[in-house]
Amino acid sequence: MANGKPVSTLLQSSYPMMGGDGPHSYIRNSTYQKAAIESVKTSAKKAILAKLDLKTSIFNLSSYRIADFGCSVGPNTFDVIENIIETIKLKHQQDETNRNNHENLEFHVFFNDQSDNDFNTLFKTLPRYHIDREVFACGVPGSFFGRVFPRNSLHIGHTSYSIHWLSEAPEDVCNQNSQAWKKNIQCTNLVEEVTEAYKKQFKKDMGAFIEARAQELVPGGLMIILGLCLPDGVQMIRTWKGVVHEMIRDCLVDMAKSGITSVEKVESFNLPVYFPQFSELKEVIEQNGCFTIEIMEEVKHPMEDMLLSNDFITSSYRAIFHGVIEEHFGGGVIDELFDRFAKKLNKDPVDFFKCQKDMQYFILLKRKIY
Amino acid sequence: MANGKPVSTLLQSSYPMMGGDGPHSYIRNSTYQKAAIESVKTSAKKAILAKLDLKTSIFNLSSYRIADFGCSVGPNTFDVIENIIETIKLKHQQDETNRNNHENLEFHVFFNDQSDNDFNTLFKTLPRYHIDREVFACGVPGSFFGRVFPRNSLHIGHTSYSIHWLSEAPEDVCNQNSQAWKKNIQCTNLVEEVTEAYKKQFKKDMGAFIEARAQELVPGGLMIILGLCLPDGVQMIRTWKGVVHEMIRDCLVDMAKSGITSVEKVESFNLPVYFPQFSELKEVIEQNGCFTIEIMEEVKHPMEDMLLSNDFITSSYRAIFHGVIEEHFGGGVIDELFDRFAKKLNKDPVDFFKCQKDMQYFILLKRKIY
Repeated sequence: MANGKPVSTLLQSSYPMMGGDGPHSYIRNSTYQKAAIESVKTSAKKAILAKLDLKTSIFNLSSYRIADFGCSVGPNTFDVIENIIETIKLKHQQDETNRNNHENLEFHVFFNDQSDNDFNTLFKTLPRYHIDREVFACGVPGSFFGRVFPRNSLHIGHTSYSIHWLSEAPEDVCNQNSQAWKKNIQCTNLVEEVTEAYKKQFKKDMGAFIEARAQELVPGGLMIILGLCLPDGVQMIRTWKGVVHEMIRDCLVDMAKSGITSVEKVESFNLPVYFPQFSELKEVIEQNGCFTIEIMEEVKHPMEDMLLSNDFITSSYRAIFHGVIEEHFGGGVIDELFDRFAKKLNKDPVDFFKCQKDMQYFILLKRKIY
Repeated sequence: MANGKPVSTLLQSSYPMMGGDGPHSYIRNSTYQKAAIESVKTSAKKAILAKLDLKTSIFNLSSYRIADFGCSVGPNTFDVIENIIETIKLKHQQDETNRNNHENLEFHVFFNDQSDNDFNTLFKTLPRYHIDREVFACGVPGSFFGRVFPRNSLHIGHTSYSIHWLSEAPEDVCNQNSQAWKKNIQCTNLVEEVTEAYKKQFKKDMGAFIEARAQELVPGGLMIILGLCLPDGVQMIRTWKGVVHEMIRDCLVDMAKSGITSVEKVESFNLPVYFPQFSELKEVIEQNGCFTIEIMEEVKHPMEDMLLSNDFITSSYRAIFHGVIEEHFGGGVIDELFDRFAKKLNKDPVDFFKCQKDMQYFILLKRKIY
């Protein structure tokens, strides 16, 4: 700590969602994630009501500490937290012995994301937390692949649409001498070496995520994980998201041909994103051993059967991949890339009927009590 | 909370120090405050060692929660927190029964300031907190005149050079029909009505500050307050800071004459700053009744006897008053104002030998145990 080196230079690579509230910002382009969160609100509510046991000292509290990991800039994270708070209040209200204290409950709420996340925007757009004098908000900068809270300090953790982000692209796919070095920007699941490299990286990162949360949560504490994976046996390249990633790659290749970026840049670009198969995700959680899996189920995404418009796809992916693309290619390519992408998509739209479905999951873990 | 109105529109006025790390930023122009903090490091260390009683359950902990109120953007706040952490570790090391656990101590550290403070810069310049895996940093947006933490959640609070900032200029000095409406921008202590108006506002604000901390600190918790006041009987206008404030006022009057700003703007401008007299400060703390005053003493500021250079004064005041001036006059006046101020100061420098001294105080409060 005596060493004054800024923490940001020591952390893993970081790809924040597009900050601010401009037309390309994440704040204005996260409808897909919002729909997902909306759709599991009821699941989360039911799960917390069922698993929050006020008979134990752990949850018979007047003050709860709740964290959202990988919060980005809102507004989705605000909805998530509000839903959890309302549920805890309801639980206290329903409980005979605690009925009287539900009006005195206080909530310490922690918004976590990388230290280059736009916390200024997050803080300026906070809902009326402070005014109500019952919810106290904090920002927590740091990579969730490591500890960001003291031991036994959280009662409820939450993360949504975040653990498919790896801490970095797998070493092997970035190494030109490796068998896994292929001219793909993603794990398509077509080439075994590439799949293995991504699988290994995911196990490492997800293992670190689960281990950090195991230390941070109080015994009996709850962890909610919402996200996307693949049903067992489905290849990434067969899903519409896999198709979109390939299309982004094609645009980058075209841009290299036009001299806007270099072939080397494109060849060395690998998305630090991996959608695990359902059983694979379960395996990593079980291997950690600190949690019981209370719920792990598929939940239908409300937009699953919708034919997403090309504009919607373009603006969503621009907001999501802005950081990672800019980091690798520099600031000048984003406009050009997504102009080309929009054109390509209009010429050759995603055939949603031909694509296989990915899977949205809802997980509720309970920290074991030793 | 259901109401989505941003919190920033509901809070009191807020005048953050100049953000970023540019030539006029607070980060580069807070040497005076740094020197003050350095000078009381030893006092703070001694005080914590003496008052932290590991025999009580309150402080026989493996995890401490520490907050700095009005942290601005560093680096001063980082030094303050580091000093507190090192002292707690030392205390555990010195204690026979706790000697073994001092290596497992963890610290949850909270940096509080207004929600328009530049938290992005704060987070990007954090020292190696996270890497050491023992210190976990959070940002806490919100006015410290109200609650920003749950009840009984903090072990040690700290604030330095912040409570002379009022939540707003006193109502009476802003009201043209009031006896206290005078053509001053500060409380000079020359006009009784003005002094009374500022005194009243200070009592209200400082009272609210103390009451909020009384609720947030655990029983037995410590609150350190470092700042500037006036020795009993000394008028603000007789101190060098009072002289400087008057000089800023003179420049604004000149600018109104030149048509750069309006007479009305200057007449309606009142610095929301008040340096209480020593006994007045003590009275507000005692009136609250939730704290015992363990230490309340004058500490010499290391620059007290130095003749500060004109450049130093100009750049320090620019960084400090930037926010409050811009809020009232708009963005265009800062450069012009401080160009004029620098010229005026060079022509007619502060006569430090003729000025009376203000007083730097160090206060350690202990939350009473009921």
